[in-house]
Amino acid sequence: MRAARYYGARDLRIETVPDPPAPGPEEITIDVAWGGICGTDLHEWTNGPMTVNTPEKPHGITGDHAPVSFGHEFTGRVSALPAGYTDSRFKLGMPIMVDPRIICRKCAACTSGMDNICPKWGYIGLNGGGGGGAGFSEKVNVEMRMCHVLPDDGNVDLDSVVLCQPLTVGRHALGSSGLKDYTGLNVLVLGGGPVGLAVMLNLRAKGVGVGLSGRVFVSEPTKQRSEMIRRLGLSNDILNPMEVSVAEQCRARTNEVGVDVVFDSAGAEPAMLSGMESLRLRGTYVNIAGWKRPFNIPMHLAMFREIIIRFSLGNNDNDYREVVEDFVAGKFKGAEALITRRLPVTELAEKGLEELVRNKDEHVKIVATWRKELLDRALL
Amino acid sequence: MRAARYYGARDLRIETVPDPPAPGPEEITIDVAWGGICGTDLHEWTNGPMTVNTPEKPHGITGDHAPVSFGHEFTGRVSALPAGYTDSRFKLGMPIMVDPRIICRKCAACTSGMDNICPKWGYIGLNGGGGGGAGFSEKVNVEMRMCHVLPDDGNVDLDSVVLCQPLTVGRHALGSSGLKDYTGLNVLVLGGGPVGLAVMLNLRAKGVGVGLSGRVFVSEPTKQRSEMIRRLGLSNDILNPMEVSVAEQCRARTNEVGVDVVFDSAGAEPAMLSGMESLRLRGTYVNIAGWKRPFNIPMHLAMFREIIIRFSLGNNDNDYREVVEDFVAGKFKGAEALITRRLPVTELAEKGLEELVRNKDEHVKIVATWRKELLDRALL
Repeated sequence: MRAARYYGARDLRIETVPDPPAPGPEEITIDVAWGGICGTDLHEWTNGPMTVNTPEKPHGITGDHAPVSFGHEFTGRVSALPAGYTDSRFKLGMPIMVDPRIICRKCAACTSGMDNICPKWGYIGLNGGGGGGAGFSEKVNVEMRMCHVLPDDGNVDLDSVVLCQPLTVGRHALGSSGLKDYTGLNVLVLGGGPVGLAVMLNLRAKGVGVGLSGRVFVSEPTKQRSEMIRRLGLSNDILNPMEVSVAEQCRARTNEVGVDVVFDSAGAEPAMLSGMESLRLRGTYVNIAGWKRPFNIPMHLAMFREIIIRFSLGNNDNDYREVVEDFVAGKFKGAEALITRRLPVTELAEKGLEELVRNKDEHVKIVATWRKELLDRALL
Repeated sequence: MRAARYYGARDLRIETVPDPPAPGPEEITIDVAWGGICGTDLHEWTNGPMTVNTPEKPHGITGDHAPVSFGHEFTGRVSALPAGYTDSRFKLGMPIMVDPRIICRKCAACTSGMDNICPKWGYIGLNGGGGGGAGFSEKVNVEMRMCHVLPDDGNVDLDSVVLCQPLTVGRHALGSSGLKDYTGLNVLVLGGGPVGLAVMLNLRAKGVGVGLSGRVFVSEPTKQRSEMIRRLGLSNDILNPMEVSVAEQCRARTNEVGVDVVFDSAGAEPAMLSGMESLRLRGTYVNIAGWKRPFNIPMHLAMFREIIIRFSLGNNDNDYREVVEDFVAGKFKGAEALITRRLPVTELAEKGLEELVRNKDEHVKIVATWRKELLDRALL
């Protein structure tokens, strides 16, 4: 089969590799339909290998290292089942949303519902596994328990369901706040990039936002992203932090109370400070962002308002289950606009990864496929 | 009356000032029995005025500024009631534990159970009020709603009940964790000073600690404080961070799980880091300490364990109610050992404040009184 293989920074090669072996007893082989480029992929492209393993430090579960088949956001259809498989759960041709995580299933985290923070975590598409395949190859092997079956009745947009993977990151953040019910809450999202959008879309799926209960504020400096948020109808309170005081606006528009929750998908000090200032007393600040610089707690705000700071990392079993369910139920309608470009995998490096380096703010999600008929259909 | 009056750093004067005026309709006058020296007082003594107001910036509620009558931890007995007062709640001579806070009772914080973070907060004894009196004067006027009546049946140690004020800080911290039930939890306390001890005593009152459920770990470098904790029977796991790895010990002694909660009353980076490392996955870190240096979140720990960081400031109505109830019920038995010296107020500066500067680790609480008979009785 053909596969896009990651060798190192700005070194992605289209190669012919062996097909995945026949699936083991708990596996299936998937013919990949679509793969999406994630922010992590972009970091690997510009500065890797970082999450991708080196020969000196192979992955703790797969034992693999660079070069690896690339791409960890993907969907496809069942193309092979284990020998003698008789269960009706999986059938050839069934559409599948894959949870690409590689986790140990044995540690304290995995055995207590915190499998997103398994210390051995990895991803098919970054850390090997997958029978040699991944999201930007033609085929891949995946454990059955990581496969979410989708209805094949024409009601689910199979060309966009790959968005479920980034959406789970937003879903996880909503849970990480510790809040059970978002109805009527006022929320500030710092940064309108892919992760921020995933948070907003999940808020809408949970009944918060424009035309629903509560209010979603967004701090976003770029025109392009603000436009996207507006077009998706996700917020009527998009604030440009270069032009207005986000905290002042949040207070003024919430009767001087402040917002209940802040989701930080920006990871920059000025944004964080404005977020803390925007919070109500004992409000919750959830960090989803990676931080390149030190995260210095503003004690005058945190202490004198008794702010709660929480952290959200990745996604777990439950997030996938919920997001796929909600996607199938139509709760993420409109999200397909997040896909700003569709490509053949052969153009992934130049028109996908490099395009995101050059024109980051113009894109949210770029997806690629090996299958011409899918590309033609989707571009219709 | 006589009063110890604070003028500025290392300038405390014993003066004769007018008695407090006759109490207003919602006030009572109290003959002060005991006043305690708080860490805040010590900061004012060495580096003030800080919390004490200056003439340029008088207090927002009292309008007062230095010089002020000093001392905000105090108890005493009712010595005057409002003219025409007929209610039976307060009677002349009744022993009272005073909540010395000055709060607005009108703001969003005050009207929603978060009166500890009223933005206008102050204390009788630091910020004026009190009819000109405070904890180290002979008399003081206090609002009725800030007075907790104590039983006068000989079963409550009225010479030590002044400890309720620092104990409320520990009680508030327990609530600030967001945890409702401490039964069986493993807890690490960073720093065995007055605030750390208040946390441990509250944990014991809540059923956690030696001979009870759960386990209390303490990180404390000094011999004297460790000895105090041992003598009070508050922990069998007192760890000297200069000699052992606190995180390793906490993990080893909790089946490699880590502790459920950390209370930071140390406010120093090495302690904080060891605390974060000691926490279980999604454990809670509660900061009670003031930080002189930046509080830099260790992202590798916070993010990859999804740690919850919370802040605890002061004490509120509810903390006072609970602590006084528990004190009366005998749940803080043994706490009287925290009083390491008793003095006449006339010796407060040299044998109280300066002694704490010189020999901080040898003391927990130094208390003073104007009343010779109380001093003689207590020292018996």
